[in-house]
Amino acid sequence: MENHTKLYDVGVIGLGVMGKNLALNIADNRYSVAAFDLDSVKVEGVLAQEKADRVNSKQSEQPLRVHGCNNLSEMLSSLEKPRVIVLSVPAGAPVDGVCSSLIEAGIELDDIVIDTGNSLWTDTLEREGRYADNFTFFSSAVSGGEMGARFGPSLMPSGNKKAWDRIKPIWEAIAAKVDAKTGLPIERQEPGNPVTEGEPCTTYIGPAGAGHYVKMVHNGIEYADMQLICEAYQLLSDGFGMSADEIANLFERWNKGSLNSYLMEISAEVLKQADPFSGKPLVEMILDKAGQKGTGLWTAVSSLQIGCPAPTIAEAVYARAVSTQKSQRVQLSQLLSGPQAVKPSDEEREVFIEQLESALYCAKVASYAQGFQLMAMNAKERNWTLEFAEIAKIWRAGCIIRATFLQSITQAYQSAERSGVELENLLMAETFSQALSTKQLDWRKAVSTAVLKGIPAPCISSALAYYDSYRSETLPANLLQGQRDYFGAHTFERTDKPAGEKYHLNWSSVKRELDKV
Amino acid sequence: MENHTKLYDVGVIGLGVMGKNLALNIADNRYSVAAFDLDSVKVEGVLAQEKADRVNSKQSEQPLRVHGCNNLSEMLSSLEKPRVIVLSVPAGAPVDGVCSSLIEAGIELDDIVIDTGNSLWTDTLEREGRYADNFTFFSSAVSGGEMGARFGPSLMPSGNKKAWDRIKPIWEAIAAKVDAKTGLPIERQEPGNPVTEGEPCTTYIGPAGAGHYVKMVHNGIEYADMQLICEAYQLLSDGFGMSADEIANLFERWNKGSLNSYLMEISAEVLKQADPFSGKPLVEMILDKAGQKGTGLWTAVSSLQIGCPAPTIAEAVYARAVSTQKSQRVQLSQLLSGPQAVKPSDEEREVFIEQLESALYCAKVASYAQGFQLMAMNAKERNWTLEFAEIAKIWRAGCIIRATFLQSITQAYQSAERSGVELENLLMAETFSQALSTKQLDWRKAVSTAVLKGIPAPCISSALAYYDSYRSETLPANLLQGQRDYFGAHTFERTDKPAGEKYHLNWSSVKRELDKV
Repeated sequence: MENHTKLYDVGVIGLGVMGKNLALNIADNRYSVAAFDLDSVKVEGVLAQEKADRVNSKQSEQPLRVHGCNNLSEMLSSLEKPRVIVLSVPAGAPVDGVCSSLIEAGIELDDIVIDTGNSLWTDTLEREGRYADNFTFFSSAVSGGEMGARFGPSLMPSGNKKAWDRIKPIWEAIAAKVDAKTGLPIERQEPGNPVTEGEPCTTYIGPAGAGHYVKMVHNGIEYADMQLICEAYQLLSDGFGMSADEIANLFERWNKGSLNSYLMEISAEVLKQADPFSGKPLVEMILDKAGQKGTGLWTAVSSLQIGCPAPTIAEAVYARAVSTQKSQRVQLSQLLSGPQAVKPSDEEREVFIEQLESALYCAKVASYAQGFQLMAMNAKERNWTLEFAEIAKIWRAGCIIRATFLQSITQAYQSAERSGVELENLLMAETFSQALSTKQLDWRKAVSTAVLKGIPAPCISSALAYYDSYRSETLPANLLQGQRDYFGAHTFERTDKPAGEKYHLNWSSVKRELDKV
Repeated sequence: MENHTKLYDVGVIGLGVMGKNLALNIADNRYSVAAFDLDSVKVEGVLAQEKADRVNSKQSEQPLRVHGCNNLSEMLSSLEKPRVIVLSVPAGAPVDGVCSSLIEAGIELDDIVIDTGNSLWTDTLEREGRYADNFTFFSSAVSGGEMGARFGPSLMPSGNKKAWDRIKPIWEAIAAKVDAKTGLPIERQEPGNPVTEGEPCTTYIGPAGAGHYVKMVHNGIEYADMQLICEAYQLLSDGFGMSADEIANLFERWNKGSLNSYLMEISAEVLKQADPFSGKPLVEMILDKAGQKGTGLWTAVSSLQIGCPAPTIAEAVYARAVSTQKSQRVQLSQLLSGPQAVKPSDEEREVFIEQLESALYCAKVASYAQGFQLMAMNAKERNWTLEFAEIAKIWRAGCIIRATFLQSITQAYQSAERSGVELENLLMAETFSQALSTKQLDWRKAVSTAVLKGIPAPCISSALAYYDSYRSETLPANLLQGQRDYFGAHTFERTDKPAGEKYHLNWSSVKRELDKV
């Protein structure tokens, strides 16, 4: 597949951070690339970067494999047929804009366009139909941020199966790799020297939309994961007076245990980083207003619409929303009282750190349980067959939520599959039910401390309420059904009668008859 | 407006529980009604009910004012022009179905159709345009359940102002009434003897969709209110061994204090109700699976989309979702451990009851704060001018969340208005910031008890995290922005630089330069 003919293997449209790095990753894996962006500076940028990479990696003898195109027609005529074109443009209207331009430029029926942006999964579904007469619209969600795109992302493709056969070798080449024995990522970030051994972090997810749905939920879980770490940071700093550096060291230690994850690792790095301007910890100079791009809120919205409890993910989205209302918070911090601050002893701090480690682990399991149940419930509604062991597998490396923990989830689904049972909720897996049962007391103590100290921990505590709700054989929804029947004649079922039989009490009459309706 | 001509004042289409009672309410207020339902049994039902009411109330001399129609053409030809037609059919397709039939039957441009169902507000917005060439599509959300519809609901009309002028006298007549001096509902549920004095619980809300939006948020708050009471019930029964009857008595006591509300009142009634079949408390025979019709989840979805933190409302929706997964809960109750149950002393119970009363009050304020902020943020986005003092006023009677508490909200908005300040968040009102500051310690203790006892209290505890988040001048979103910049180059703002200036640290380079971007 060396670049010795005039025709290129893969087209890449959109050379922002993600597109540029995907193009370089594809080229590193010995595929030739025709690259285009409306901004010619970006085209120059990717070409210059490839040259610089060759020099830096002392591989100047290697041919350059990325070719810049001036327009889409030029790109189409320089690609091998059936064409494979990777789209890396912002989600929404830009995707359809490029598709229309490609139709004008003469794209053909057998050609494949792969949307790699953060598109809403229902948009993807619609687009497959919309472009079916012009070309094959395929999609592949990408996780791993800019470094993932460059050296190995986690890839979640879905859509036409024949298109997948054509794309598969390229996708398996550029994806992150996991050591099959250990389940750990093979980390190597060297231009021109891609990881070629190990299990690639990509698998065919399902029909159109499935890959983006799974990626959306991945991001929802990511929101929760990030917020959990942030809550730990606030508890340790505001509640126990620890410095950024001390917390960084603790996070590094945690990262070696059951809390190991890429997000824990980079949180430690962020906390250790000095501000080049002031010399203070950079984190203390960063404004506490969180941005978001929508995938987290889409996940929460989907969970509400499907009726799948995902409170920890929703709380993470709301936490970002509260953070943006800084001026309200500044005002309210003057008006609303909290408990009196008490300086904790060193011993109290050490005890709390232990409890918090358990709390984070448990809350993390609860968020993953929410995400996986959501995927399962949506899959049922859409008639998708999702392979959860495979999904957990391709999240073990390359993506933002990668963690050794994903190996346990993989094994939980594999073992359920072997026993022929459906794992409706991750909390049912022995490995997690036992771990949480052991750690739950510490979890409670950590939440109680947060509550009594007046430090918000919305995700850690909502995860505990989630755990306790599922532990409750009976919930007070019986009273709620009574209320609904009282004011709205909404009826209720009885514990001593067959499911589906509805009863209504005539609350407003003096006699209050109970009727089967 | 007596029924002495052949022409009737108001048409009512759809004679389910709500439509039937609205028709009888309108007739009680001396308007004549032409009533229609596809099911002729329901038409007979409303006529028979009016007759029975006359007999029961010893008003047989009064003329019957409801006339049954066999079809829509007959209804149209029997109504005074311009016609006023009240629609009480299920939200969604049925509304458009009836509208199409009315067009076929010859409805005229000046005629007004009022949708009183639980329609999604964006559907209402679309419908105003869709039917503009045929008739005036107006909407008025209705709260108060079946008894409200019969004897005085809270009505939230929105749409064409000229149509409102025509409807207003009817709406003010049938709405619930509040004593202007005390702010308390004037409760009288006597057929043929409607309440004609006091302030009517209806006010023009705003342009098309506004009324249904406000009603949607009302229902979101209602979900939270109901769930808060249910959590108190579970804490008292599972945590402190109180019987349904003891809890009913406590709720009755609470209903006389700051927790006074219709929902508290009926919860006590439900808890006191004996099961006609078994003689046990009915609540213990009701299956703990909560139903829902969608308005609560719409509220949560809207809050996520707008970026308004409404975690207590979302948790209430999720609590219903968990309740429906009974078989999962039964399984998980065997697998997941909780703390060891400890029998509390009578004194501990009394202390807890005090704390819980504070906790409920505070959590309730927090949910209302969420709902009102959501309405404000959506109004800004839609360019609506909502009068929050008026909205709180019309919720003081007739609707499901009616409570003396609404009087305090009314006053908070009135006082903010007088001072010319915008109340961005209800927690900023002195009356609430002071009450919560006083009660917050008890609130914390109640949540801590729930957490340590292993009893889920998702709404009470998420409301506390909400309170503590808004009390936090700084939140850990600085670390979150650091994480986002690390893996996704999402940039951050700095505390020492002007708002809007974005920075990015080059995390992957050895030198880690900080760039303004």
